[in-house]
Amino acid sequence: MTYTHPHTVRYLEVDAQGVVFNSWYLAWFDDAMTGFLAHRGLPYATMLESGHDVQLVRSEIDWRAGVGFQDAVDIAVSTARIGRTSFALDFEVRLDGTVTCAGRTVYVVVATDGSGKRTIPALIADALGKPAPLLPA
Amino acid sequence: MTYTHPHTVRYLEVDAQGVVFNSWYLAWFDDAMTGFLAHRGLPYATMLESGHDVQLVRSEIDWRAGVGFQDAVDIAVSTARIGRTSFALDFEVRLDGTVTCAGRTVYVVVATDGSGKRTIPALIADALGKPAPLLPA
Amino acid sequence: MTYTHPHTVRYLEVDAQGVVFNSWYLAWFDDAMTGFLAHRGLPYATMLESGHDVQLVRSEIDWRAGVGFQDAVDIAVSTARIGRTSFALDFEVRLDGTVTCAGRTVYVVVATDGSGKRTIPALIADALGKPAPLLPA
Amino acid sequence: MTYTHPHTVRYLEVDAQGVVFNSWYLAWFDDAMTGFLAHRGLPYATMLESGHDVQLVRSEIDWRAGVGFQDAVDIAVSTARIGRTSFALDFEVRLDGTVTCAGRTVYVVVATDGSGKRTIPALIADALGKPAPLLPA
Repeated sequence: MTYTHPHTVRYLEVDAQGVVFNSWYLAWFDDAMTGFLAHRGLPYATMLESGHDVQLVRSEIDWRAGVGFQDAVDIAVSTARIGRTSFALDFEVRLDGTVTCAGRTVYVVVATDGSGKRTIPALIADALGKPAPLLPA
Repeated sequence: MTYTHPHTVRYLEVDAQGVVFNSWYLAWFDDAMTGFLAHRGLPYATMLESGHDVQLVRSEIDWRAGVGFQDAVDIAVSTARIGRTSFALDFEVRLDGTVTCAGRTVYVVVATDGSGKRTIPALIADALGKPAPLLPA
Repeated sequence: MTYTHPHTVRYLEVDAQGVVFNSWYLAWFDDAMTGFLAHRGLPYATMLESGHDVQLVRSEIDWRAGVGFQDAVDIAVSTARIGRTSFALDFEVRLDGTVTCAGRTVYVVVATDGSGKRTIPALIADALGKPAPLLPA
Repeated sequence: MTYTHPHTVRYLEVDAQGVVFNSWYLAWFDDAMTGFLAHRGLPYATMLESGHDVQLVRSEIDWRAGVGFQDAVDIAVSTARIGRTSFALDFEVRLDGTVTCAGRTVYVVVATDGSGKRTIPALIADALGKPAPLLPA
């Protein structure tokens, strides 16, 4: 199930080339991940209260076109894969229906007490739902 | 005693106007504050270990000229005022000796355990030294 | 006339103290300024097309309380003062109706062709409207 | 030939998890790319003056461990691959000799006049030198 997170490009995100600087895409993916989980019934605070948090272990991003100031983009998110302690989310940045950037990020589930990786609990698995990748494997 | 913190303007800091976006100046002042305290014998980690931290309560910034990508600026820092629980630092962003931006930031000393304001301890007072404002009162 | 710009605190904005890092407030004020002008009939692109842009010359910020991850804040904006080539906007960050941060920013109107300051054109004066400061002078 | 770009972790880069937020790594890679080219005889301004610029088309990042406030990291950069219009750089973030993060970024060479892709000119090819990947293909 795909969730879309709306974002209007901020002045500070645009660099001297007139398009959004690359690092902001990872910030957008993070916002979209939080919105996705909340939309699927798991506010981030609830996840933390359950003793779990997520950390990035890998990210791949492909840029196809730039976006500029005040562009209203949608960041689509969908579960790509669920493993034992890690899962992947797919992201697409869409402007007027065209995908300008696609990304896949792998997260590992960790304990909030610093004791390391955890098997994905039902709380998180339920929120992630059945994988429905946006990108080819 | 004035400390100067060197910084080379980053590509991402420059906006579509071709100059550094305003919010980065506060980030520079923060870096310069940390460098100033360390230079004066108080690494930030040592301050935290002593149970003290600092929080911003007020900041004033005047911009006189923009700076661009790869400009090598110096951020000068000096103690402006020391009170009972708060102190002020003055900042100047200098490019080739010209002040392009000046700022004053007021910090309050707080306990790291969340219990609120603290009288400025000797550890911090010694690092701040005798006030020598860069800006007029 | 006060406009309020909604913002949900992002994970990346929160620092190791558990509250939003200071520099992001200037970024929020910038977003709110753009939203304010658009709400008042002047999209930023229209201002640029008219040959005018705005640059910050001064900003004052007072922080009264921190805000944390996922807090839904409103950034209120109102015109504080209109001069010949410059104007000031007042900002308040409000969380559940309480002002956690207040700021005033002075902008100068410049030509987009790099030729410097301009008398505030009717286009911008109309959008700014009659001054109604949020903060005491 | 590997170039290393030094960076001391800034307070604002550290999030509520106590480690650097993921998006800053792309910012570091960008700084390191600029430093790498300059170190190899091609200041960014010279590249722009020649009518060429670079744009990211793909980035892969693997995180192995977090880094915290004031950690002094080195960002190593090396040319991974040179094609007709694109090239790849490898990056390693090293803390006390341990690689905490590895990345590969693909750039396409474009004309600064907005007319699109360009064959990599000698100016850039010379700066990139002979490929010496840090990461496995």
